[in-house]
Amino acid sequence: MAPAETPAAAGVVAGEQPLGAGGALPHVVIVGCGFGGLSAARRLKRAAVRVTLIDRANHHLFQPLLYQVATGGLSGPAIAAPIRRVLRGQINATMLMADVCAIEPQAREVALRDGRRISYDYLVLATGATHSYFGNERWAVHAPGLKTLDDALEIRRRILLAFERAELEDDDERRRPWLTFVVIGGGPTGVELAGTLAEIARHTLRGEFRRFDPKQAKVLLLEGGERVLSAYPPDLSQRAAEQLRRLGVTLRTGALASDIDEYGVRVGDERIEARTVLWAAGVAASPLGRCLNVDTDRAGRVPVEPDLSVPGHPEIFVIGDLASVRSDGKPVPGVAPAAKQMGRVAADNIVARIGHQPTRPFRYRDYGSLATIGRAAAVAQVGGMKLWGLPAWLFWLFVHIFFLIGFRNRLVVLFDWAWAYWTFERSARIVADPHPRDSG
Amino acid sequence: MAPAETPAAAGVVAGEQPLGAGGALPHVVIVGCGFGGLSAARRLKRAAVRVTLIDRANHHLFQPLLYQVATGGLSGPAIAAPIRRVLRGQINATMLMADVCAIEPQAREVALRDGRRISYDYLVLATGATHSYFGNERWAVHAPGLKTLDDALEIRRRILLAFERAELEDDDERRRPWLTFVVIGGGPTGVELAGTLAEIARHTLRGEFRRFDPKQAKVLLLEGGERVLSAYPPDLSQRAAEQLRRLGVTLRTGALASDIDEYGVRVGDERIEARTVLWAAGVAASPLGRCLNVDTDRAGRVPVEPDLSVPGHPEIFVIGDLASVRSDGKPVPGVAPAAKQMGRVAADNIVARIGHQPTRPFRYRDYGSLATIGRAAAVAQVGGMKLWGLPAWLFWLFVHIFFLIGFRNRLVVLFDWAWAYWTFERSARIVADPHPRDSG
Repeated sequence: MAPAETPAAAGVVAGEQPLGAGGALPHVVIVGCGFGGLSAARRLKRAAVRVTLIDRANHHLFQPLLYQVATGGLSGPAIAAPIRRVLRGQINATMLMADVCAIEPQAREVALRDGRRISYDYLVLATGATHSYFGNERWAVHAPGLKTLDDALEIRRRILLAFERAELEDDDERRRPWLTFVVIGGGPTGVELAGTLAEIARHTLRGEFRRFDPKQAKVLLLEGGERVLSAYPPDLSQRAAEQLRRLGVTLRTGALASDIDEYGVRVGDERIEARTVLWAAGVAASPLGRCLNVDTDRAGRVPVEPDLSVPGHPEIFVIGDLASVRSDGKPVPGVAPAAKQMGRVAADNIVARIGHQPTRPFRYRDYGSLATIGRAAAVAQVGGMKLWGLPAWLFWLFVHIFFLIGFRNRLVVLFDWAWAYWTFERSARIVADPHPRDSG
Repeated sequence: MAPAETPAAAGVVAGEQPLGAGGALPHVVIVGCGFGGLSAARRLKRAAVRVTLIDRANHHLFQPLLYQVATGGLSGPAIAAPIRRVLRGQINATMLMADVCAIEPQAREVALRDGRRISYDYLVLATGATHSYFGNERWAVHAPGLKTLDDALEIRRRILLAFERAELEDDDERRRPWLTFVVIGGGPTGVELAGTLAEIARHTLRGEFRRFDPKQAKVLLLEGGERVLSAYPPDLSQRAAEQLRRLGVTLRTGALASDIDEYGVRVGDERIEARTVLWAAGVAASPLGRCLNVDTDRAGRVPVEPDLSVPGHPEIFVIGDLASVRSDGKPVPGVAPAAKQMGRVAADNIVARIGHQPTRPFRYRDYGSLATIGRAAAVAQVGGMKLWGLPAWLFWLFVHIFFLIGFRNRLVVLFDWAWAYWTFERSARIVADPHPRDSG
């Protein structure tokens, strides 16, 4: 696919040829290779288009298991699939590993951070969301969030180092902040992290330290609202809270962090000394949504037409966590199945536009909700059925492994899980640098 | 093990109590948890001593497979075992994750970088070797070496990003340096890296790029001497060179790098444009050897007595790659089996000293040499027998997996290997940051 001549387009850097210019077939550019972007790309496999996928990373990440990497239960590669491998057989797709810094809808171009530009006929924007500190960005360094593989490895490093530091301290007073873990936010990610941290302290590390008992570790889950997992029915939130307590988590609702620094968290008038603080409280949509000349919602999401295209830009589709979309009158939740479904609809609608056919509206098909809490603990709502405890957890395990990309990864994760379940071991407890920059 | 009162020792930081002071049993401090240090610690399991192990990392690394992590074939955790887990059942052993910056033989203390001090009755120094740039330390940033897990992940990042960059380039001229890989040094590590790189370009990445054929990639192995694997008999070096060529490696002997920068390597009058340069040419012993007040050899190794103790310091033992030791009149090679054997002898000799018994001299038991080259390619010398090709490779595979620490890791590595062999896939091809600092 050699670049060919193209008419000069507004905004093109002088002397630079936009990548992807020329060629006989319409050019579809997909930015972001999460569940939405990847499903759009695959759906276009047999379409008469050229597809270019752009992502900052070279891998598709199975984000629902990211907390397992952050807590040393799985290695990074176990939940990541090289995008090139996934798309190897799809000859109409080119993958570029690059950082998109702007969209220029008038010029129909995507700008990369290295100065390159890529022109498109159709654009699918699927760059998702990242964590938000609600204007307190200086908290980021003290309380990392969990969105990328690098985030997960950083959190793993902090958790493991905290226990190592505790072993180096001589007295209990100085040891306690190293053994206090605060998770801020009682949504699915916060619940997973807190439950797994408690499991690590109570089971995984048992007998491994000589100067303190890891069971002394305190795991605090702070939720600003009235209950954890607020997207679930109240009785399942209640079940989740019970399971968290049984795992050893101290749950505090109505607790809003007012300040975070290197040494702890302030909640109202109270100061909690903790060297490890994890952020699971807020998400904000990718800043690329702001390039589209439409008013984004409070979370930065782009309101789209029923067919997922951007108002005034029928050639641009926004999908996944970046899109604000309603289905049957209800807002569509920011979950993987919704993103996948949107990817397919956006792809179909691009093909429809090319063929001058009418597009179809997106309708979310809700297969249920599932949240894991820890070892043999989860809650689930499937159709009218509510599950919790071991049955919910087994269901969760089955669903997540089933949807993991790649047969090998499924086997690896299943093996690691079975191993961890019987031995309480977490196989990826690996950390190298004893002198990190941020955590003292 | 609460710290108790101890007589003030020279060099102790005012007001700081050395860790490990007091206690009725002799205190053995082991610095470094590679094959030597870990085997010494385990050998002391039933001895009437207190053992403190200190390492910069929290894991023991199975270094012979590190090149597989560097080339995306295995994940880091697959070849690393948390030291605490390995020693969980050994109640006389305490593990500290810390950075030792000095040894003070007069004070019998170990100084940590954070200011803490640890007193010892017996010391085992097992901090091994790192790569040496022969005085050209500025090459380090352009040509990373392979000793730690972090090194391996950095090399993996560079290799994967080079191919990604090649896909972004428009013309062949600018693409070529990204597709040129130079490995400097034809010892076992250099041969492994070059062979595996060629395999990646020819097989693993086949069909995954749209703007170039990964087979265009050139892998150059530069060896300063006359032949690769110079520690082996000449005919096995010859076999290794043949196998490298068959895998697609361009081997150049008598080729000494005279300069390395971000864009390539100079060899004599010739300039080789290459964005990825890997260093496998030289090792230097850990700088801690210089704290012992003895003359180290040219490579920085500590010449030890036949019982592995340091001349003038019967309470200090040096083992593994840091020790310069002869057995049966021949220098002992820097290989894992030698380090393990030394660890056991040092442990036994400490027990002998405590019991006022004579120590025993170290004798190296040579089980043979093994070097892998790539897929189904290796050379081996076992007793009088020489092997190469598939038989040598199968033997290498068996030996390495057999000696991997941990049953789970053995299964994981075996599975990944079988998978990679049949599919040519490398499961850990994961990289995130498209804008690295060092490689442009």
